Amino acid sequence: NAGGIRVIRYGMTRNWVAGLKVVTGTGDLLDLNGGLVKNNTGYDLRHLFVGSEGTLGFIVEATMKLTDKPMDSTVIVLAVPEMSDCLAVLQLFRRDLVLNAFEFFSHNALQKVMSTTHLAAPMATDSPYYVLLEFEHSDTAALSRAETAFANCLEQDLAVDGVMATSGKQNKQLWQYRERITEAITPSTPYKNDIAVRPSQVPRFLAAIDQVTARYFPEFEIVWFGHIGDGNLHLNILRPEDWQVTDFKSACDELNHHILDVVHEFRGSVSAEHGIGLLKKSYLRYTRSESEIALLRNLKQVFDPNGIMNPGKML
Amino acid sequence: NAGGIRVIRYGMTRNWVAGLKVVTGTGDLLDLNGGLVKNNTGYDLRHLFVGSEGTLGFIVEATMKLTDKPMDSTVIVLAVPEMSDCLAVLQLFRRDLVLNAFEFFSHNALQKVMSTTHLAAPMATDSPYYVLLEFEHSDTAALSRAETAFANCLEQDLAVDGVMATSGKQNKQLWQYRERITEAITPSTPYKNDIAVRPSQVPRFLAAIDQVTARYFPEFEIVWFGHIGDGNLHLNILRPEDWQVTDFKSACDELNHHILDVVHEFRGSVSAEHGIGLLKKSYLRYTRSESEIALLRNLKQVFDPNGIMNPGKML
Repeated sequence: NAGGIRVIRYGMTRNWVAGLKVVTGTGDLLDLNGGLVKNNTGYDLRHLFVGSEGTLGFIVEATMKLTDKPMDSTVIVLAVPEMSDCLAVLQLFRRDLVLNAFEFFSHNALQKVMSTTHLAAPMATDSPYYVLLEFEHSDTAALSRAETAFANCLEQDLAVDGVMATSGKQNKQLWQYRERITEAITPSTPYKNDIAVRPSQVPRFLAAIDQVTARYFPEFEIVWFGHIGDGNLHLNILRPEDWQVTDFKSACDELNHHILDVVHEFRGSVSAEHGIGLLKKSYLRYTRSESEIALLRNLKQVFDPNGIMNPGKML
Repeated sequence: NAGGIRVIRYGMTRNWVAGLKVVTGTGDLLDLNGGLVKNNTGYDLRHLFVGSEGTLGFIVEATMKLTDKPMDSTVIVLAVPEMSDCLAVLQLFRRDLVLNAFEFFSHNALQKVMSTTHLAAPMATDSPYYVLLEFEHSDTAALSRAETAFANCLEQDLAVDGVMATSGKQNKQLWQYRERITEAITPSTPYKNDIAVRPSQVPRFLAAIDQVTARYFPEFEIVWFGHIGDGNLHLNILRPEDWQVTDFKSACDELNHHILDVVHEFRGSVSAEHGIGLLKKSYLRYTRSESEIALLRNLKQVFDPNGIMNPGKML
């Protein structure tokens, strides 16, 4: 059930799974949904297996839906002074255009990319936040709607500056400011979280996590970026240069419980797209209630009574 | 998990459920997914509850996603000589246009509507099958793409005649040929089935069922209509005027096992949009394997160990 930058356009991977063949822990071969579009006969086991991380059975065959080839697209990067303005920009563009992506990154994320890659700044003006959006256009009407939306952002002070690509080459160049963040922060051995809340909650959520971090470890720098269009944020806490990696990791493990309390308070997800696996097993209770987790265990028991399917993972 | 004529455009209802609050048979209150777009933490119980017909618990709150207001749309009805041509028409229109609906009905369905409603024929030419499609258009470019597709259908002999609405009023008039079928056949107390196969299989599937019916009860007339764009067909077997209702019903119950064997052979669904309930409980085994049904029972046991949730339904 993977995610990524196109979820705002296409939804999560589970939406595209039309059928699954699985072998359960009891050795049964199940042929689930068989690629049907319409099927309303009992519980949908297909969706139970999508995202189950191999803990219920092996997926031995998957039938995927296809969609049309994407149309031409253009990238815009805007310098946005306030986090909440990012959402206003989203609403403004979404009203008139089909968005393929709506990403954001913080000023320090941009700075790190520029110093690692030696790319020039995307625009003259600095700003605490940047939005990168990509929209589709099959005709010139969509392009002029985008130009109008761009101008409206500047007029309404939602953005202080911006750049719109005029070629496929420039699209790619602009994407680099977003795509090369991970590479740029790697030397600081970042402590990463892949968290999500409802999109409308993002500004309050981000501020709450900044506050918690500043309270416990004011010396830690946070680099934020992510898929703000669908509420999924990548939180990266950087190791100060004078900290040892092991000390930093255990400090972050401690801090993380406070961060996950914030996720819990916002009824968010502790893993928006990466899954639970081994690493986040202890986090599950921040996202799902005790009675839910008990039910998940009982469900596993139904499909895998001997606990032989990806043992030790997720639950 | 309802369906209907817009599934070709928007998918089944489950796609629009962002969150559910449910009370299970054990009295637990579960808050499932909380309206998140991205969430990859363990088994998706939300999808287990959608379409479960109240047999796992009560749904006490649902959070639904919204989408944009539909654009203007136009209806076309085409007279199609061969069932397989309906699919070629679908491909041709789908390539260049956004389809909101793609329905078909047989010649006898049209005749019954005309004799009940006294509507005039939609066009001069008769044909074994008719396709009704509705497409979206935000600009005149889409309208001219539709005119081209219409002309191509006639040129390629996929259709022998057709009519394209030129007003909202005419859209509604054309929809009546499809929408009033149920009313028109009611006097024949039809024996109904709501079945689905993969869209590409529809012509072979329809022919196989016609054949089975003709073998066992050649005096029975079948009226076909449905959402061929997503593979969902409504099979209506009409009671001959000289048959008593009770005799007809028991003959159909007998015939139905042969029909459901065909559904099974095509790996189709015995209930595309209506669910299982009480009426189709014995049909479930034609759609789902014995080991799947055993698993469904065990799943119910997890959520409703005392069997108090909608007892006797579905399983």
